[in-house]
Amino acid sequence: MKRIKIDLLKAKCQEVFTAAGISEADAVLLTEVLVTTDMRGVHSHGVMRSASYLDCINAGGIRAVAEPKVLSESPASLQISAAGGLGIPAAYKTMRRVIEKCSAQAVVCATVNHSDHYGAAGYYAMMGAEAGLLTFSMSNTCPLVAPTGGRANTIGNNPFAYAAPGEKHHGVLFDVCMSKVASGKIAIMAKEGKPIPSDWMLDRNGNPTTDANEVYHGAVMLPFAEHKGYGFAVMVELMTGVLAMSGMMDEVKSWNKVPGRDSNTGHCFIALNPAFFGGIERFRRRVDEMIDRLKACPPANGVSEVLYPGELEERRVADALANGVPLPDPSLAELSRAAQMTGVSLGF
Amino acid sequence: MKRIKIDLLKAKCQEVFTAAGISEADAVLLTEVLVTTDMRGVHSHGVMRSASYLDCINAGGIRAVAEPKVLSESPASLQISAAGGLGIPAAYKTMRRVIEKCSAQAVVCATVNHSDHYGAAGYYAMMGAEAGLLTFSMSNTCPLVAPTGGRANTIGNNPFAYAAPGEKHHGVLFDVCMSKVASGKIAIMAKEGKPIPSDWMLDRNGNPTTDANEVYHGAVMLPFAEHKGYGFAVMVELMTGVLAMSGMMDEVKSWNKVPGRDSNTGHCFIALNPAFFGGIERFRRRVDEMIDRLKACPPANGVSEVLYPGELEERRVADALANGVPLPDPSLAELSRAAQMTGVSLGF
Repeated sequence: MKRIKIDLLKAKCQEVFTAAGISEADAVLLTEVLVTTDMRGVHSHGVMRSASYLDCINAGGIRAVAEPKVLSESPASLQISAAGGLGIPAAYKTMRRVIEKCSAQAVVCATVNHSDHYGAAGYYAMMGAEAGLLTFSMSNTCPLVAPTGGRANTIGNNPFAYAAPGEKHHGVLFDVCMSKVASGKIAIMAKEGKPIPSDWMLDRNGNPTTDANEVYHGAVMLPFAEHKGYGFAVMVELMTGVLAMSGMMDEVKSWNKVPGRDSNTGHCFIALNPAFFGGIERFRRRVDEMIDRLKACPPANGVSEVLYPGELEERRVADALANGVPLPDPSLAELSRAAQMTGVSLGF
Repeated sequence: MKRIKIDLLKAKCQEVFTAAGISEADAVLLTEVLVTTDMRGVHSHGVMRSASYLDCINAGGIRAVAEPKVLSESPASLQISAAGGLGIPAAYKTMRRVIEKCSAQAVVCATVNHSDHYGAAGYYAMMGAEAGLLTFSMSNTCPLVAPTGGRANTIGNNPFAYAAPGEKHHGVLFDVCMSKVASGKIAIMAKEGKPIPSDWMLDRNGNPTTDANEVYHGAVMLPFAEHKGYGFAVMVELMTGVLAMSGMMDEVKSWNKVPGRDSNTGHCFIALNPAFFGGIERFRRRVDEMIDRLKACPPANGVSEVLYPGELEERRVADALANGVPLPDPSLAELSRAAQMTGVSLGF
């Protein structure tokens, strides 16, 4: 683990991404989302992904230069095609349009298809929350989870996030995937050579495994809370593969396993404007109140305090702002690989 | 368990409800929702609740006659007050307005406050789906679940449901609460004198319990999948206690424990019109395709088939249509109690 100054890390990421043929504007967005995600401590979705994005660009699976296209638009909706480009800038630009539209509408739903890995779902939810909106963000992925009762990876480990702004408190941020554990976290454990608990996934033969490396060899992850996690995965698939008209289930290709394929990933964003529901000031105060009351819950034996969704990430952001972004070894290694690919010298 | 003919069961429920002072129109809606829920096999939220609704009316906690009021409206939003009346007719009427509005809008969000127990969340989601809309339905409840790391019932066991229409298949329907198990199911086990597994809830002293009756004595249910279930409970609280301006967390009073209190429950409905996202026919076909592919997943050892969300309930509806509504003893007992309270003879 190393601490890197935020400005330095951002400058180096931008240098790497522009050297890879990504436009300066998109490199800024890509950097912003990845570094913020590392600052939140979600290293599985931070700069650790940088080299894989470049692998995809080099192999032709992601177009370095692609401008999102509006497929259809109405006062409360927006259908975007990411045109085979990077998922992160496409999602960011879509959310910018959602925020704009939602100043005049109580609720706006935007879908994105023909996209790719969009990083941490929570980034876009928080982007809406910072604009005063209660915001949902979700994406499908290639099949990585077995439905309840099944033994094949049939549905995506579809990330789902929401965020809402407070006044005294920054707000709440919730970001989960549908398996017991995110594949990115298992990938980190694989890189670190750590075993995993036996109830996280089945290997390609349908047997429980403790080998994290199986995540790269057709492993099947199990949904959280059985039919509940399965049902939430189906919900995201409905909002993406069905509503967004992206690939659905096995039509979505792994974005990083075979980097030369178009992944055809779909995203969906829904934003609600509290101004249409009693006013933003009242809303923010109520979010604060909710947070205060959750914090007031007496902790269970052996627990020091009850946390609200996103509190831990808030603290990590404060720490990163004060002390630099902590990058674990696998993140440093992948960012260094991206730098080597593009002839950039990181200097850290 | 007894099988009751659908028409007879509906006629008797309506007779009971109108005899309790509920308008004929509302009695029809109340009956429709409760009986359909029993037909789906969700007996915890079916006619078993009838006597408790009457208890609340008699004790003054629910107004038998109350017309929902529009608090605010915009093209994509609707804020309703249920005016302290029954939750089910208020939710039904709100969804009717949502369906109407959503024919001209890509997405509509409606909130309801000053309401009460609204039965099965899934009913309203399916109501939207049957009108061709991808629909979400959710409600808060009085505090019944501990946040992750906490030991007091601090947040509601907030039900959340979605439904989407297919063409060949009727569609998907998902309906869950945030605890490992619904309190209604624990209530049924209590009535049946059955013990519960020790990891479903903590008793009022924060200790694990196997006594289902503790559900009536300050028990604390644990969220599913730890912080994931907790985070989904917070999501629903944001959409109801915060956005709908209903009671939030402990401002929501148990609707049936002390029947004389105003519960101040909140609901939220979001509907999306696929016509704005590539067309309803394409949407329905994609839902069918999704279902077919989920069904095609090879089952795990010892499992006969993979089910899609709502498939089991579909089969039960077909069975109820053919053979009558199966009512378990606690449902029969509570409906009989409601009949006695209103001087109605059930004849079954």
